[in-house]
Amino acid sequence: MEFTIDQIAAMLGGQVQGKSTEKISMLAKIQDAKPGQLSFLSNPKYEQFIYTTQASAVIVKKDFVPKKEITTALILVDDPYVSFTVLLEEYHKLISFQKHGVEEPSFVGKDVQIGKGIYRGAFSYIGNHANIGNNVKIYPHVYIGDNVVIGDNTIIHSGVKIYSDTRIGSNCVIHAGTVIGSDGFGFAPQADGSYKTIPQLGNVVIGDDVAIGANTVIDCATLFGDSTVINKGVKLDNLIQIAHNVEIGKNTVIAAQSGVSGSSKVGENCMIAGQVGIAGHLVIANKTSIGAQAGVSKSISEEGQRLIGYPVLDIREYFKSYAIFKKLPEINSRLADLEKKLGNN
Amino acid sequence: MEFTIDQIAAMLGGQVQGKSTEKISMLAKIQDAKPGQLSFLSNPKYEQFIYTTQASAVIVKKDFVPKKEITTALILVDDPYVSFTVLLEEYHKLISFQKHGVEEPSFVGKDVQIGKGIYRGAFSYIGNHANIGNNVKIYPHVYIGDNVVIGDNTIIHSGVKIYSDTRIGSNCVIHAGTVIGSDGFGFAPQADGSYKTIPQLGNVVIGDDVAIGANTVIDCATLFGDSTVINKGVKLDNLIQIAHNVEIGKNTVIAAQSGVSGSSKVGENCMIAGQVGIAGHLVIANKTSIGAQAGVSKSISEEGQRLIGYPVLDIREYFKSYAIFKKLPEINSRLADLEKKLGNN
Amino acid sequence: MEFTIDQIAAMLGGQVQGKSTEKISMLAKIQDAKPGQLSFLSNPKYEQFIYTTQASAVIVKKDFVPKKEITTALILVDDPYVSFTVLLEEYHKLISFQKHGVEEPSFVGKDVQIGKGIYRGAFSYIGNHANIGNNVKIYPHVYIGDNVVIGDNTIIHSGVKIYSDTRIGSNCVIHAGTVIGSDGFGFAPQADGSYKTIPQLGNVVIGDDVAIGANTVIDCATLFGDSTVINKGVKLDNLIQIAHNVEIGKNTVIAAQSGVSGSSKVGENCMIAGQVGIAGHLVIANKTSIGAQAGVSKSISEEGQRLIGYPVLDIREYFKSYAIFKKLPEINSRLADLEKKLGNN
Repeated sequence: MEFTIDQIAAMLGGQVQGKSTEKISMLAKIQDAKPGQLSFLSNPKYEQFIYTTQASAVIVKKDFVPKKEITTALILVDDPYVSFTVLLEEYHKLISFQKHGVEEPSFVGKDVQIGKGIYRGAFSYIGNHANIGNNVKIYPHVYIGDNVVIGDNTIIHSGVKIYSDTRIGSNCVIHAGTVIGSDGFGFAPQADGSYKTIPQLGNVVIGDDVAIGANTVIDCATLFGDSTVINKGVKLDNLIQIAHNVEIGKNTVIAAQSGVSGSSKVGENCMIAGQVGIAGHLVIANKTSIGAQAGVSKSISEEGQRLIGYPVLDIREYFKSYAIFKKLPEINSRLADLEKKLGNN
Repeated sequence: MEFTIDQIAAMLGGQVQGKSTEKISMLAKIQDAKPGQLSFLSNPKYEQFIYTTQASAVIVKKDFVPKKEITTALILVDDPYVSFTVLLEEYHKLISFQKHGVEEPSFVGKDVQIGKGIYRGAFSYIGNHANIGNNVKIYPHVYIGDNVVIGDNTIIHSGVKIYSDTRIGSNCVIHAGTVIGSDGFGFAPQADGSYKTIPQLGNVVIGDDVAIGANTVIDCATLFGDSTVINKGVKLDNLIQIAHNVEIGKNTVIAAQSGVSGSSKVGENCMIAGQVGIAGHLVIANKTSIGAQAGVSKSISEEGQRLIGYPVLDIREYFKSYAIFKKLPEINSRLADLEKKLGNN
Repeated sequence: MEFTIDQIAAMLGGQVQGKSTEKISMLAKIQDAKPGQLSFLSNPKYEQFIYTTQASAVIVKKDFVPKKEITTALILVDDPYVSFTVLLEEYHKLISFQKHGVEEPSFVGKDVQIGKGIYRGAFSYIGNHANIGNNVKIYPHVYIGDNVVIGDNTIIHSGVKIYSDTRIGSNCVIHAGTVIGSDGFGFAPQADGSYKTIPQLGNVVIGDDVAIGANTVIDCATLFGDSTVINKGVKLDNLIQIAHNVEIGKNTVIAAQSGVSGSSKVGENCMIAGQVGIAGHLVIANKTSIGAQAGVSKSISEEGQRLIGYPVLDIREYFKSYAIFKKLPEINSRLADLEKKLGNN
């Protein structure tokens, strides 16, 4: 996994200034980089570091002109930050796709289609009629139910459990212990206080470029033909609960231990912090930002709000109120003083 | 899995009016149902839909008299809602019990008793002296420790881990990745700030008709002879924490990501919403309803309360106080104005 | 697992008064103990029970002089509580180390080093170049990635998933379903609202004497050479989230469903209750105590504080304010009354 500076420039469609044949094996921040490493300069306030960095090469904007002498090679591109993140992702893929071949014992059901270049770890299980794309990596102890479809280049880490009829896109990463397609929480109350189980007949559909953390749970939809949907580019952290019939919009990010209740639709490009709860049957507008531990109990229709609290308020209003909350005993005393003066008590 | 309308009526002890030989393959709401589907009419305010529904048959109360022409067949029963939920549960069982037989490799210890009609998936593990009832479905990667007892018709989904000495009733469903019987969190503090581990010697006992979601954890009791108890009919959602020596009362429902701390007893027919925390050594009365993200730090002795907040308050009181919380900066200003008028500041 | 009173006294370096040859098979509280069981007397207010206990022996302080007749044997030691917890831990080890040998099928990669006295359950997986110490217990369905190091006497319960390059100390216990070393939640935002994955190249390092509950997740550090660190003696409960680059200090205890965000450093001997959230990039002082469901959004520099709320306040201040919060509607009315009197409205 070493590349010459020339090879990296070619990957990025950039041009090299300086020594182009040196080998690069790692990516690092400009202030931390060591010889043999590659960095980037995007924010002008970091420009000082380019004159002292030990990086073998730095990706810079194509119109960059050094104000002092530099020793590092430069790779000139249109947008250094974008180029660097492209390399980060390429590097991520390189280190993720080292495993190949089949380890035994492993289990493959009937009428299974499996693409080229895959890894099937020992004790992995693939159910009947599953369809597995090219370059998919299935780690040990993965369970893939009947009729599951998995797109190209998707990585399923150890112990992931995927129920029947789930559809997963390409270029996804799912971390260990995550469960996809378990029954939604649906029970019909009876007169004697007991409950009968409502059969859960829908599935889960996950788009391309989705990342899911460890020990997260995504329930299937209730009715046949319906799906719980995680759209393209969504990033879910660890230990998250996604209930039946939820839809998470494109490129939305949800941090660890948050939960979305049944049938709620979360918009695109939202940022949901950790330990947040979203009640059922809500619609959350695009670009909503929800602070840690907040509780959302009503739909949010205006885009781009920043909210926190339970139930959620605008983040500035919440902190203003909370500042007074801390002083409530004092406010109570001041009120009592006034009442005394006015003879109320 | 198709039945004629006659067959369904026979299952429910009902009578048919109209075309009784048509085949039904799915259950649906009266306003959504399509030909080949079956629905029910219980709430009179939905009566309008029976005159337009495309359902092939509708379950109605036996004294129902149509006010207009209808095209759907009728199945006359004592209680249409109950009959419909009975069918839902039967349907749930039908789709849940399709797997049969033994897949290899799988592991069975010494002196294990296994009933008839079971499914044992590949890579499932059954420890020594376990006792598995009839029609039990053990999915791939399930771990069943030594001396575990599992009742008839119970379904254990992929990757469930059941520690030694656990007892599980009949007609239960346990979803993927759930852990039952792990050590309670018990450590004896030492003078140097370290902790010694207190051995956890009890077990977990789960009644009949219990449903447990995915990636939930139920710890065993601390002392030998003691049990953490999940009573008959309890429904637990995903990612729930049930600590050592807890008891959950009959037909109580707990939503995702809630936790009950050690030795607390939750009553019967309670409704606990998501992300709720219940502290240790409490007793919660029957029919208590606790709102999302609430924290319960004291026992609740009066039945049927609806509570929320941290620590919990009556739900109406909480929202009245929270309405003023939002206006605290304004209240602070009003108070300061009064103080100015009265010359306090 | 039966010992004579003499044998136990020898283990503790204590002296016996009374019948020393009786056999002991269980440890119990002095007020609950039965014949054949051993108890201890540390707190003088329990002294009354030593005159009535059915325990076969009681561990007491070496200067203890009974005030009445006693029937139980006495084991005289320097510190009865410490001696009892030593026995608890020994007992814990005894019951934990009963499994031996190798069950098949199991998977062992290339160049693996494995110590003596281990248990390797069926369907367990050990990756290439792993190094497993003496007496390690690896339960069924455990996944151990490449290059993992595990110290002596560590117990890994069923279905634990350990990613490549993780290092785990000696005398640790890790409960079922826990994931160690999954990717940290790191994504580089792009101009079109999508994210590119930042490769996660660090590892997780866990010290000696660490206990980890079930279905907990510990992410690896982001950069090569960096580690997420769980120090010696830490006790983590179930369903906890530990993000990338976090460090948890020695002997800190964290209860179930709490989460620590990326790069935060939690001090030594802290007590974190359940469902607590700690934001990223914070430093929490030693001996900090954080109440259930609290949210920590700023670093805590003073040692030994007791905090609760969101964001956290001193626990007494929080409850004083919360007491007034309950009365906010009344305060609002009182304020309105005063305003009326003074002609504000």
